[in-house]
Amino acid sequence: MMNDGPRSEELALQRTLNRLADEEAASLERLFHLLAIPSISTDPTHHDSCLAAAEWCAASLREIGFDARVEPTLGKPMVVGHWRAKEKSDARRHVLFYGHYDVQPADPLEEWDAPPFSPRLVEDPRHGMMIVARGASDDKGQVMTFIEACRAWLAEHGSLPVDVSVLIEGEEESGSPSLLPFLAAHGDELAADLALVCDTEQWDEDTPAITAFLRGLAFSEITITGPSRDLHSGLYGGPARNPLQALAKILAELHDQNGRVAIPGFYDGVRQPSAGEIAAWRTLGFDSASFLGGVGLSTPAGETGFSILEQLWSRPTAEINGIHGGYGGPGTKTVIPSHATAKLSFRLVPGQEPDKIIEGWHRFVKEHLPSDASATYAGEGGSPAVGFDTNAPAFRAASRALEAEWSKPPVMIGCGASIPIVGSFRSRLGMDVLLIGFALDDDRIHAPNEKYNLRSFTKGARSWARLLAALGRGA
Amino acid sequence: MMNDGPRSEELALQRTLNRLADEEAASLERLFHLLAIPSISTDPTHHDSCLAAAEWCAASLREIGFDARVEPTLGKPMVVGHWRAKEKSDARRHVLFYGHYDVQPADPLEEWDAPPFSPRLVEDPRHGMMIVARGASDDKGQVMTFIEACRAWLAEHGSLPVDVSVLIEGEEESGSPSLLPFLAAHGDELAADLALVCDTEQWDEDTPAITAFLRGLAFSEITITGPSRDLHSGLYGGPARNPLQALAKILAELHDQNGRVAIPGFYDGVRQPSAGEIAAWRTLGFDSASFLGGVGLSTPAGETGFSILEQLWSRPTAEINGIHGGYGGPGTKTVIPSHATAKLSFRLVPGQEPDKIIEGWHRFVKEHLPSDASATYAGEGGSPAVGFDTNAPAFRAASRALEAEWSKPPVMIGCGASIPIVGSFRSRLGMDVLLIGFALDDDRIHAPNEKYNLRSFTKGARSWARLLAALGRGA
Repeated sequence: MMNDGPRSEELALQRTLNRLADEEAASLERLFHLLAIPSISTDPTHHDSCLAAAEWCAASLREIGFDARVEPTLGKPMVVGHWRAKEKSDARRHVLFYGHYDVQPADPLEEWDAPPFSPRLVEDPRHGMMIVARGASDDKGQVMTFIEACRAWLAEHGSLPVDVSVLIEGEEESGSPSLLPFLAAHGDELAADLALVCDTEQWDEDTPAITAFLRGLAFSEITITGPSRDLHSGLYGGPARNPLQALAKILAELHDQNGRVAIPGFYDGVRQPSAGEIAAWRTLGFDSASFLGGVGLSTPAGETGFSILEQLWSRPTAEINGIHGGYGGPGTKTVIPSHATAKLSFRLVPGQEPDKIIEGWHRFVKEHLPSDASATYAGEGGSPAVGFDTNAPAFRAASRALEAEWSKPPVMIGCGASIPIVGSFRSRLGMDVLLIGFALDDDRIHAPNEKYNLRSFTKGARSWARLLAALGRGA
Repeated sequence: MMNDGPRSEELALQRTLNRLADEEAASLERLFHLLAIPSISTDPTHHDSCLAAAEWCAASLREIGFDARVEPTLGKPMVVGHWRAKEKSDARRHVLFYGHYDVQPADPLEEWDAPPFSPRLVEDPRHGMMIVARGASDDKGQVMTFIEACRAWLAEHGSLPVDVSVLIEGEEESGSPSLLPFLAAHGDELAADLALVCDTEQWDEDTPAITAFLRGLAFSEITITGPSRDLHSGLYGGPARNPLQALAKILAELHDQNGRVAIPGFYDGVRQPSAGEIAAWRTLGFDSASFLGGVGLSTPAGETGFSILEQLWSRPTAEINGIHGGYGGPGTKTVIPSHATAKLSFRLVPGQEPDKIIEGWHRFVKEHLPSDASATYAGEGGSPAVGFDTNAPAFRAASRALEAEWSKPPVMIGCGASIPIVGSFRSRLGMDVLLIGFALDDDRIHAPNEKYNLRSFTKGARSWARLLAALGRGA
């Protein structure tokens, strides 16, 4: 039914889009079911919720006509689903869609206006209706734009324009430890012509984007130990090594006065974008004042000599994500604690290897440790950065589909955040990857009151409906 | 009965000491009752336990013959008790005993071998029997040495060698905010010839000590705020100010490379001990290696150019007691937090004023704050350091009594910790103060598995029984 020429293809798509419009309330209700499951992968006490979220996703796929299952791993399970046309054809494209059902922890809970796993619609003067819940934008809302697009195609036509496999993982927010073993074991089943990843942002609320550059990540937790037990700061203060102070000194030395990371060898091998790429970024009209002002800041704090977009898309970082040690309760406690812990993450760019960055960090600490202080490490890992060829046919087809929905061509952007799967799809399964998402930079992902605009959700689903059609045309 | 000459005085004391020996099991049981009450004054959730501990102390005093009551304050109540001889005499001495019924928080709970408020006896190869519980040494065990000594005198003789008032406060571990107002309102009732304070250490387990020098304290909690909300470190990392990093830089600058506090004006007015005092400390045979080695350290970390005893007894410090900000749960969370908090305390020596130290700290922070970071402060206060004349008659009488119990004269020591009441007794009520305690430096006060040797408890009570007799002789 979709091979009767451009005119009939256009009509088929239109019926799918109409179906999405008719189904909007039901779509939203389905999304709310998924958002109500507190599938925090990094917190072991939420393991059962992760299993429930996986089962929910598999059941949804089966409901719309996919052959889907929950596949165990050593960590959180994978959701795997397939829909394939009955008539086999070598000309028929096969895409693999990727998303994740796990979410970030919701703390600090007291900063949420309503419970994070009680999704609700909130009217906002600027954004209109917003879906507010942990995971609304990252990534459950985005995953559901794709599933709802497939649902509409299948409900309206009984088929999809391309063969579709789906992989929804449950450890994206905790470093994806099971992903590589899973791809190694199930590579033949998952390999497709093209991967679609929906975990990124648009350029702004009216301008779609395809993400052509992703920073990598390395992470480490360090514990500095001083005395063998907590000490009274009156009876020991002065002569006794304070691990909080030792930790503060190490972390304070992490950047030089120009904001450069001071770990020896940190910038070795870093590949900078071409002058052309940087020039293209300049034409985007990025509003630095608004970017910073939106989160209460006014002055770029990163490396001197680089614009904010260059800092975000092409420069590596070292960030402290948490420090915890000593007394933190109400009032005072005059203690010199035995130990203190910091969590750090390093954003990486092409040319940097996570393992070498972690090695350099350990050497750096060793060189900065004072007497009577020792360092131990935990929870380390990471994934390298990746970049894409924006002239590939799939990029061009996707651009046309997005332009049809948004009345503007997508911009080819970078993203400062990491999506570990992307490098793996390229290196392990040899697939090109299209990174298309409908999140906005004010969606408060990883923060209290995370939201996804209702418009992002509805136009996101419409965009996928169009993309499936465009990819079906054999672009 | 106690005025029949030296021989009968000696017999009366001996009967009291025998009574203490007979009562040992019952004394310990009474102490265990008090230790079982989790009277953590700094934590509002333990307010009721503080009230219960106060009521328990007052009831104990009434039971042995004191006129005692629980007196409310704006914070935790005071326990006030009096025993006065029926026959008034101007020659009769009147002493005020001070201690505190509140204790430090017990966290980290997981490092206790048994629950902190389930007191128990533990056999130790080095110390013999030890009383293990939060507050065993600081200060419930010490308070009970005095009350048990009074109990034995009163049970055996129906009277005490001196008139005795008792003041037991409940906010010593949280800065004693109610103490000055209470002394102002009840000064006439509390004024005595001499104050006895039992909240300090011996020199070692065989050598008693009178503490002649106490460091003061100033404390502050600082919160650094950067962005207006928690940010994703991928999407903002680089350009966004990280308050954890700003805090680490400020705290790292707090000491110079010689361990001196870098706050401008910090050492203004500091009075150093005389050459004679320092020489006397050198004769004490302080074992630096054992002091540090006992807590897993090997190298003095304080100001270069000063011995450990000088650092502890005569040099001020700046200590970080806690840092908390960003993610601290299991796994990773790539967040740039909106704010980060540190608790600090400054140990002061004579010549330093807490208010000026806090002012200097605020100026220091202001000078070190980077762009897009602001500082707010909470929970600030403090008390100055104090020193004593060790040739006063009460010091000499106390020395003789302690020598009789321990077969060694007490050493006149300093103490690095603060006891806010001491300065107030001198300045507000015009009293001399005798600081005598039986704690040991390995009692793990303010730390997990706090203990008080059973021998400290029994010989402490015997020491007080002797001290009361010595003071009754009109020394």
